[in-house]
Amino acid sequence: MRVGLDIGGTKTDAVVVTDDGALLHRLRLVTGRGPDAVVETAVEAVSRLSDAVARPIDAFTSVGVGIPGLIVPGTGRVTHAVNLDVEELELGAILAQRLGVPVAVENDVKAAALGAWQLLDGSGTMAYLNLGTGVAAGIVTDGRLWQGSSGVAGEVGHLSVDPLGDRCGCGQRGCVETMAAGGAVSAAWGADVALPVLDLFDHADAGDPRAIALRARLGHGAAAAVRILTLTVDADDIVLGGGLTALGERLLAVIREALAESAAGSRFVASLQLEQRVRLVPTGSPVAAIGAALVGRGESSHG
Amino acid sequence: MRVGLDIGGTKTDAVVVTDDGALLHRLRLVTGRGPDAVVETAVEAVSRLSDAVARPIDAFTSVGVGIPGLIVPGTGRVTHAVNLDVEELELGAILAQRLGVPVAVENDVKAAALGAWQLLDGSGTMAYLNLGTGVAAGIVTDGRLWQGSSGVAGEVGHLSVDPLGDRCGCGQRGCVETMAAGGAVSAAWGADVALPVLDLFDHADAGDPRAIALRARLGHGAAAAVRILTLTVDADDIVLGGGLTALGERLLAVIREALAESAAGSRFVASLQLEQRVRLVPTGSPVAAIGAALVGRGESSHG
Repeated sequence: MRVGLDIGGTKTDAVVVTDDGALLHRLRLVTGRGPDAVVETAVEAVSRLSDAVARPIDAFTSVGVGIPGLIVPGTGRVTHAVNLDVEELELGAILAQRLGVPVAVENDVKAAALGAWQLLDGSGTMAYLNLGTGVAAGIVTDGRLWQGSSGVAGEVGHLSVDPLGDRCGCGQRGCVETMAAGGAVSAAWGADVALPVLDLFDHADAGDPRAIALRARLGHGAAAAVRILTLTVDADDIVLGGGLTALGERLLAVIREALAESAAGSRFVASLQLEQRVRLVPTGSPVAAIGAALVGRGESSHG
Repeated sequence: MRVGLDIGGTKTDAVVVTDDGALLHRLRLVTGRGPDAVVETAVEAVSRLSDAVARPIDAFTSVGVGIPGLIVPGTGRVTHAVNLDVEELELGAILAQRLGVPVAVENDVKAAALGAWQLLDGSGTMAYLNLGTGVAAGIVTDGRLWQGSSGVAGEVGHLSVDPLGDRCGCGQRGCVETMAAGGAVSAAWGADVALPVLDLFDHADAGDPRAIALRARLGHGAAAAVRILTLTVDADDIVLGGGLTALGERLLAVIREALAESAAGSRFVASLQLEQRVRLVPTGSPVAAIGAALVGRGESSHG
């Protein structure tokens, strides 16, 4: 049995899976903020899972952690986990010592990519495109995560596709993230509601021109990411995940429309059959936590 | 001994290498145009190499071919080799029958990427960015070519980075190729001289404002490709090859300047250390032909 933890900005998703990645138990808890609280959250999650499956913690073969930050492959060290108020944390080493089991740490989107591969029975090359607060992708080929050496593989959200576009938090202009990230879209829409992107989509459906324009821009930003993932790693499947996918088919339709538009203007783009490459991750599935458990299996030692 | 052929639009570069990729013999001949003439060029090249090393053709373990066209991995079938007047050609099957040795066919830029890995003793992930008539890249990790399944891996030249940019031959606007390809730069400069990009650089050095602007745009287009290759596959080394690299350090300086400019505007981009990732392929080396020979070794069965 292996544990997978998806430590998110507000909650932590925790699972126990078999060595084959089949789900045995799942629970969620609130994530603490700051380095110490993040460690305590992880320890508590593993402890509760241990109670739930009635096995001691050291009966777990591994603990894998997905976390929204930069992880230099193989180090277990997290940096720039801004949403968790963590600037730097030796999460792997600390947790391994606290728990007495091997711990592997990976960026949450990359972990989710492995989970999507598992859940969707992937083949060839799959890209998992996360449309959440930010935009990033994880790339999996033949069941192994593409890591690279500096931890920035798949960071397509910070590729600029418009030199006159909005200023991005990273300092560049026109990044994919300024167009298609939940954070940027919500800020641009500006409505003080619980689910601003849902509100935006509802207003667009009702004919609000500004909402229609922002929704189309979201589609174009995501479509740019899809083209980038196709014309670099030739991803056979591009699986859309992250918070925005709560919009389901409404989101997919907007992205498909932007892809169809780019195909209509270019025989080359049309030949890429981008609309067929794109699909949604199954909603509600603990894709990142399952992927984190697979990271613990050491399947990510690639690239 | 293995043969590698780099069939270019005007000439064919042909080598014999050892199984380890060490160069034994090299010769060049003029490439014929059209399907039949391309086949005859390849057969003649192998025949001449056979004479040169005083061994019969069937003593060669394999023949690998790099050719500027779309090759669906593993098929040996070439399509859209526009510069050779070849719309479709079963090059692998025909050559294997004519020569009586195993033949592998790969896109020329992808073959060159393998050759660059060999020549530069690569490690980790290397991207070979070809700045020739067009722009495309080949990606090699741990000595194996990244192929994907539809043959479009590394086609970064047709990623748009400016929705208001020049119209590309592919139908899109603002493709990297419209900014950084030899063909597009020459057309934009418009001088009726033998080496228009060299002429452009000379005029830029002499202070011509239009030449300076086009040269800077070339740098920005190549820099965009470098960022794309970093934020997708996290390439440790990005090796610049292709016809424009005849400009040597003058080209590298322009690209480094564009990279430095983007780093100055973004701490995130600065952290990628892009200037350190970029270097020139050694000039005059038969990188594509040697790579083609390695394709014949079957090292490209990845992705």
